Amino acid sequence: MIQKKIYVNGIEQNIFVHPDTFLVKVLREQIHLPGTKIGCNEGHCGACNVIIDGKLVRSCIVKIGRVAEGAKITTIEGIGTPTNLHPLQLAWVKHGAAQCGYCTPGFIVSAKVLLDTNPSPTREQVRDWFQKNRNVCRCTGYIPIIDAVMDAAKVLRGEIPYESLEYHYQPNTDIWSSRYPRPTGIPKATGTIKYGADLILDLPPERLYMGLVQAEVSHANIKGIDYSEALKMPGVVQVVTAKDVKGTNRINGVAFPSNKGDGKERPILCDKKVFQYGDAIAVVLAQTEAEAYAAAKKVKVDLEVLPAYLNLVAAKAPDAIEIHPGTPNVYFIQPLNKGEDTAPIFARKDVVIAEDSVITSRTPHMPIEPDCAFGYIDPDGCIFVHCKSIGVHLHKFMIQEGLGLADDKLHLVSNPMGGTFGYKFSPTTEAIVAVCVQASGRPCGLIFNYHQQQQYTGKRSPFYATVRLAAEKSTGKILGMETDYDVDHGPYCEFGDLLTVRGIQFMGSCHDIANIRGEGRTVCTNHGWGSAFRGYGGTQANFASEIVTDELAEKLGMDPLELHLVNTHHPPKGDYPGSTNPSGQILDSYSYEQMLLDMRPKWAEAKKRCKEASTDTIKKGVGIAAGAYGCGLDGPDSSNAFAELNPDNSITICTAWEDHGQGADMGAIGTAHKTLRPMNVDPSRLKFTWADTRNPVSGPAGGSRSQVMTGGAVRVACENFLAGLKKPDGTYYNTYAEATAAGVPTKYDGTFSVPGVPCDENGQGKPFMVYMYGVCLAEVSVDINTGKVHCDHIVFHIDIGKICNRSVTDGQLYGGVAQAIGLALTEDFEDIQKHRTMLAAGVPYCKDIPDNIDLVYYECHREFGPHGAAGVGEIPLCVPHPAILNAIYNACGARVKRIPALPERVLEALKAKK
Amino acid sequence: MIQKKIYVNGIEQNIFVHPDTFLVKVLREQIHLPGTKIGCNEGHCGACNVIIDGKLVRSCIVKIGRVAEGAKITTIEGIGTPTNLHPLQLAWVKHGAAQCGYCTPGFIVSAKVLLDTNPSPTREQVRDWFQKNRNVCRCTGYIPIIDAVMDAAKVLRGEIPYESLEYHYQPNTDIWSSRYPRPTGIPKATGTIKYGADLILDLPPERLYMGLVQAEVSHANIKGIDYSEALKMPGVVQVVTAKDVKGTNRINGVAFPSNKGDGKERPILCDKKVFQYGDAIAVVLAQTEAEAYAAAKKVKVDLEVLPAYLNLVAAKAPDAIEIHPGTPNVYFIQPLNKGEDTAPIFARKDVVIAEDSVITSRTPHMPIEPDCAFGYIDPDGCIFVHCKSIGVHLHKFMIQEGLGLADDKLHLVSNPMGGTFGYKFSPTTEAIVAVCVQASGRPCGLIFNYHQQQQYTGKRSPFYATVRLAAEKSTGKILGMETDYDVDHGPYCEFGDLLTVRGIQFMGSCHDIANIRGEGRTVCTNHGWGSAFRGYGGTQANFASEIVTDELAEKLGMDPLELHLVNTHHPPKGDYPGSTNPSGQILDSYSYEQMLLDMRPKWAEAKKRCKEASTDTIKKGVGIAAGAYGCGLDGPDSSNAFAELNPDNSITICTAWEDHGQGADMGAIGTAHKTLRPMNVDPSRLKFTWADTRNPVSGPAGGSRSQVMTGGAVRVACENFLAGLKKPDGTYYNTYAEATAAGVPTKYDGTFSVPGVPCDENGQGKPFMVYMYGVCLAEVSVDINTGKVHCDHIVFHIDIGKICNRSVTDGQLYGGVAQAIGLALTEDFEDIQKHRTMLAAGVPYCKDIPDNIDLVYYECHREFGPHGAAGVGEIPLCVPHPAILNAIYNACGARVKRIPALPERVLEALKAKK
Repeated sequence: MIQKKIYVNGIEQNIFVHPDTFLVKVLREQIHLPGTKIGCNEGHCGACNVIIDGKLVRSCIVKIGRVAEGAKITTIEGIGTPTNLHPLQLAWVKHGAAQCGYCTPGFIVSAKVLLDTNPSPTREQVRDWFQKNRNVCRCTGYIPIIDAVMDAAKVLRGEIPYESLEYHYQPNTDIWSSRYPRPTGIPKATGTIKYGADLILDLPPERLYMGLVQAEVSHANIKGIDYSEALKMPGVVQVVTAKDVKGTNRINGVAFPSNKGDGKERPILCDKKVFQYGDAIAVVLAQTEAEAYAAAKKVKVDLEVLPAYLNLVAAKAPDAIEIHPGTPNVYFIQPLNKGEDTAPIFARKDVVIAEDSVITSRTPHMPIEPDCAFGYIDPDGCIFVHCKSIGVHLHKFMIQEGLGLADDKLHLVSNPMGGTFGYKFSPTTEAIVAVCVQASGRPCGLIFNYHQQQQYTGKRSPFYATVRLAAEKSTGKILGMETDYDVDHGPYCEFGDLLTVRGIQFMGSCHDIANIRGEGRTVCTNHGWGSAFRGYGGTQANFASEIVTDELAEKLGMDPLELHLVNTHHPPKGDYPGSTNPSGQILDSYSYEQMLLDMRPKWAEAKKRCKEASTDTIKKGVGIAAGAYGCGLDGPDSSNAFAELNPDNSITICTAWEDHGQGADMGAIGTAHKTLRPMNVDPSRLKFTWADTRNPVSGPAGGSRSQVMTGGAVRVACENFLAGLKKPDGTYYNTYAEATAAGVPTKYDGTFSVPGVPCDENGQGKPFMVYMYGVCLAEVSVDINTGKVHCDHIVFHIDIGKICNRSVTDGQLYGGVAQAIGLALTEDFEDIQKHRTMLAAGVPYCKDIPDNIDLVYYECHREFGPHGAAGVGEIPLCVPHPAILNAIYNACGARVKRIPALPERVLEALKAKK
Repeated sequence: MIQKKIYVNGIEQNIFVHPDTFLVKVLREQIHLPGTKIGCNEGHCGACNVIIDGKLVRSCIVKIGRVAEGAKITTIEGIGTPTNLHPLQLAWVKHGAAQCGYCTPGFIVSAKVLLDTNPSPTREQVRDWFQKNRNVCRCTGYIPIIDAVMDAAKVLRGEIPYESLEYHYQPNTDIWSSRYPRPTGIPKATGTIKYGADLILDLPPERLYMGLVQAEVSHANIKGIDYSEALKMPGVVQVVTAKDVKGTNRINGVAFPSNKGDGKERPILCDKKVFQYGDAIAVVLAQTEAEAYAAAKKVKVDLEVLPAYLNLVAAKAPDAIEIHPGTPNVYFIQPLNKGEDTAPIFARKDVVIAEDSVITSRTPHMPIEPDCAFGYIDPDGCIFVHCKSIGVHLHKFMIQEGLGLADDKLHLVSNPMGGTFGYKFSPTTEAIVAVCVQASGRPCGLIFNYHQQQQYTGKRSPFYATVRLAAEKSTGKILGMETDYDVDHGPYCEFGDLLTVRGIQFMGSCHDIANIRGEGRTVCTNHGWGSAFRGYGGTQANFASEIVTDELAEKLGMDPLELHLVNTHHPPKGDYPGSTNPSGQILDSYSYEQMLLDMRPKWAEAKKRCKEASTDTIKKGVGIAAGAYGCGLDGPDSSNAFAELNPDNSITICTAWEDHGQGADMGAIGTAHKTLRPMNVDPSRLKFTWADTRNPVSGPAGGSRSQVMTGGAVRVACENFLAGLKKPDGTYYNTYAEATAAGVPTKYDGTFSVPGVPCDENGQGKPFMVYMYGVCLAEVSVDINTGKVHCDHIVFHIDIGKICNRSVTDGQLYGGVAQAIGLALTEDFEDIQKHRTMLAAGVPYCKDIPDNIDLVYYECHREFGPHGAAGVGEIPLCVPHPAILNAIYNACGARVKRIPALPERVLEALKAKK
């Protein structure tokens, strides 16, 4: 150890450190400034940015020994405070530039250095700066961030007043559809909100750190575990294995009855087998994280290695053994039979048939915050697990039996989260943490490093899909569709059946197709297990059908936009009941046609622009795609909330609406405020809650269901609140004192349900009562020498119903489009070793995302949405990526059929064309 | 554990805590706000004050489980920051109201609540508030604190501008003798300076906490230690005993050659014997403090209990065994033979003889910060111990051999310290920490609780002293003095011989006495070991002689002030060489006479006032005393420093001048600035250093030697700096660039030595080259029914030479007077169990100290002091307490001969009078 004197945010700190300790650890763990975040922890993401003597530094790669004696360091805590925001922080709040907020400290610190050195940057210079300094944001698509920097610079230059960035609520007005700043904005912009890893640092001193012993093969039988050496290592308190699990040691995957497995194949800690790389076999509990992992290395696991089926082709091979003995590797099948048999249609002479097969990627979610959780036992002997769950009640149900815990002996609570994008629809570490808490009786914390995040959390499941479209030669009217696909869901079935159903629901969903035949199958493999990801199933399904739609247009000699228009849905009219989606359900909003018509001139301009701007080596092209996605779970769905007037006259809007950055805070407050308008409530009185299994059951925050379902429950609760607090004279008991004096209740429950009908064995039903729709135009540049593609421009027409909060919605859509660009061009987790870093897995940096993403909202009222709102999160992951792939084809004739469209795949497709 | 949401300094904190955890621990260890301090940890001192929902709360006695959900807590960190000081903080800095600074956060937080509720308090209301809320300050005597609150209130009321409290340095002026705010003022006022316990919290996660196994008897043979059960306790890493000590396991007490012991009787960890209550026998190293102490309770020590000699009478008894076998319990004797034999004088008929015996107390130092230290091994294998040492080089020497460490394998560094007042002139925990670091190879930290602070650190050694004075009946001229005293130094000799010498040096030192005979003896006992305390020896010696002087005046029928004047020292004049002190040395400043003359009218007024104000039950009285103390060690002394121009043009004034709150920072900067005036250096360029054995050897910060000796070394270094950086044209190379371009050195050493002569076997010599002098008037009220005494007024005329910094000097003197009042009236550590708390040990609260302490400086230039300065720290502990005891006698005729003058002793003396 050495002593070093540094000045942090103007305060002298004498620190005692190992010179090899990275600065970020020193700042967080020794100087106790947790605003500086650990993301990738290898210098790829900028979450750990700090300023050292005026220079921007990624503190995760700077050893404290190399920091100069007397160095002056500024962290986010030194930029401004909640009561004294720096203009950058205020601008961040205004523009909703903090979504999950985990990258925010690093960005603001970075921007501070930029503006210190260049007070008047152009937008492009700001983008260059963030690109050069590797600031990754995974939520916002960067645009709100650039907006914030530009505005803060104006304030700093004295061109606009500081106050102009503040939101001033006017009494008796709506915040619905406004840019009211979300409640977590200031804590995020100041680095004062505490995420899981920060809270673990705050646990009492008896806290134990968990070091996982993980499989380094993908498939094996476990013959023995010897942890005697580990127990002798410094700081080790205990080693936990499957033998310490009190229940069934199985996570309940909530399998469909028609699933050939029982859905209980995932062990909490591996007992008999290893099913995938990274599977947890044992856990070392130690006083420090370093001690836990040092000891974990000493645990010897005796394995009989089995053949690893790393894709569905291998797992389906006739000689493949059953990964879960007793359950076939193909364990679920979903047929689709809509309308007439399609074989005769495809046999007709007057049709043009387009057919193609595509493969989608095992996309990693890449939140900047790696997974983490901690747990403890409360005085009643109940185990609390605080985690990144976006389905606290669901996950409690899924892990409870495996842990052997009674209903009142387990609670799950969501931490503020640095993004999940859906991977946390599946439990990850919750059950393992609970086991360790049970076994040790002490608070236990687990923080994944980024490699663990990549290798041992769920991924988007690849589809191997074939789509055939038959269209009337003369009109382009699609008469029939045939689909056939396999889903590689990794070793654990959790929601693999549900995902497979999404395939039949969303292939061809932007077209009015009367006759469809299709089948999807879920396949068990040994690659990373499948979990939800924004666009869940729609991403894969719509990719397949929109690529083939583009091919169909070419075969027909039609413009693809016009082909879409020919086939678009139409509303009921007179006797006409309205066109239906692949599930046979009429649409809740027939906005496609208007969105396509409005796109027509933009499409024409873009085609012209691309043609003119293409050169011999850089080919520019434009593509189009449309698509839909449902808001909700499959079939009937419901959610619960309550609204309560508190003694301090604040009003708690209590739900279990998990916020993984998407805006549960604002959703709850915005919806409540709109409902409570008759009472003229100042929005500052409204308090949201973090999700907790002690709160009303709101269902998971996935599938874009929350604004619809939990927003609906909030609406009902607030309507009941209004009714309950209404005075005989029509005014309201607006204070706690008035209400209690009048003897009226102060707490009002609300339940909201929708009459959905799950898809039947023919794939027909009313799976969602609210859908989102979109039409996307994408322009790209393709370097035909290198195969590198850049997305230059996106126009996205979207119908997500009425908008609750404009900043949040913009952020969701910009960010979703950015993820769609990554999905289309760079992101993958196919190579378990190579893709374990954010950089290698293709996370998009600032300059990978165009600054001109044009969002056009079609705010069509939704019957089942609160105040007419639909969801938001999935739609941008369903539509832009096929538009981009179609644009690549348009640019250079390379028809890339597997995403991401990596340079080598583009070059290969170019070669195939020749 | 429970989860609780609280708002701390405006930031939401979700904490996970045991409901029984005290709030101060949660704030410090879990929310990482170390500005809130732990002092007594039982609600007696207010160092832990925070505000909860507007109310002042001592956070060491509030369990977090009882803090309301959603409570709003403000800590010192939330009052203001170094760049945004609250008016209270600014006023604190201005008035030097933070000395050691450890009580400061608690006081400022307390004052905040006061001013929030009463914006216009009177001084007395401020004092009432601090009294009621039990805010203890041990450094300042409270007066600068009240000044600061009054000024801050004016700013808050808008009566004076904020800026009026700031110090604005005018270029080309002196800060010498000014109220320039000391460099550590802002960090202390904002709670951002880190003390030892705070730094321990910042150590890397492999840090171990030390739990001491301590003796619970005062004298015993150790027959065995069984720690097998302790090793099995949770979190325990190791148990360390004497067997783990690599060296001699003895602390070198630096005994005089004439000491009958070798000075090496104190074990680092007890091996053969226990010598006093609290002696450390073993140390448990564990991951947490709670685990370490839980396991320490499981260590079984097999003891053969021996008779405990808890005072010197018992230890001197003929049947007493030798506490250290081979060394007599009376192990050092210091005679005094000045002038003629005194027997004939005392036999004369024309003399009046006064004789009395007094006993002084085993005063506890009671810093608000309990002892603490930590250590680690650097990459070169050197052990660093960071501690409260006020003699880093001395202590390194004292513990090095015991540890078996080579000179380059051990370094000691002073932490910012919450007061020592001298107890840290002896090493306490340093060697034990080093042993644990050696044994474990890991960073180890030890934090005493307040009981440990009381029971296992050195105390002021009681003197049992008899003084006889013989004065000419007609004139009052003292012709001879005889003294005889024993010193109860506890079991360890460290500086016990030196202390005994102080007795002969300072008994009767305010009188010009030609003929003295005396003897002092050092006695080994089993009570708390003796260590330095402000006034060291002078406190005890002058008490004895000034009580007897008062008795002499009465016997002579003279006014005591006039008796002092008759006997006062006179300077050389013509052939007259000047009067000498008991060591036979002429004085360095003959200021007594003027101080007495100037006191005369005040004395007369006070006598009149007291007489008039006395009632039947409350008797008021006034007393007077004078006295001197030396600045330095005994005999020759020297110190070293260097001044270095740094690349950033700051100038480091490097010393090992330990700052235990007294103002080493300001001493170094003030002295350097004065010396560097020809260069016109802005004081902000001057940087002081914390003491470190890697710095020049400056000697310990005790005995009021630092301003003289290390100030002298700073002066010399700065003079060399000036000479070295002088250009041929007479101007200076004022920047690093200039100096290096010119090729002149940038670092300049300075050594300062004084030609002292230690006292010989007759007690004659020139032990100090600089002395401090004082005359004190004290007024008291005595409740003759209860015996309770209150000190109402102090007038203190002091000659401490030229003043370096007025705020620091005022603070030292106010605080010293306050300690003298405690010494006189309340403070004791005689009952090992009862006196283990600050409250029971009689720490003075605000209202125990009068608000009117009048300091009058006589700035007589000192030849050997830098720029004419002497020291400060000891003199207020040498003079006021006999004045107070004399005032009690004057009030009610009770001659109390043992301090503290507790009510029962006053009542007893009143009874004796009857």
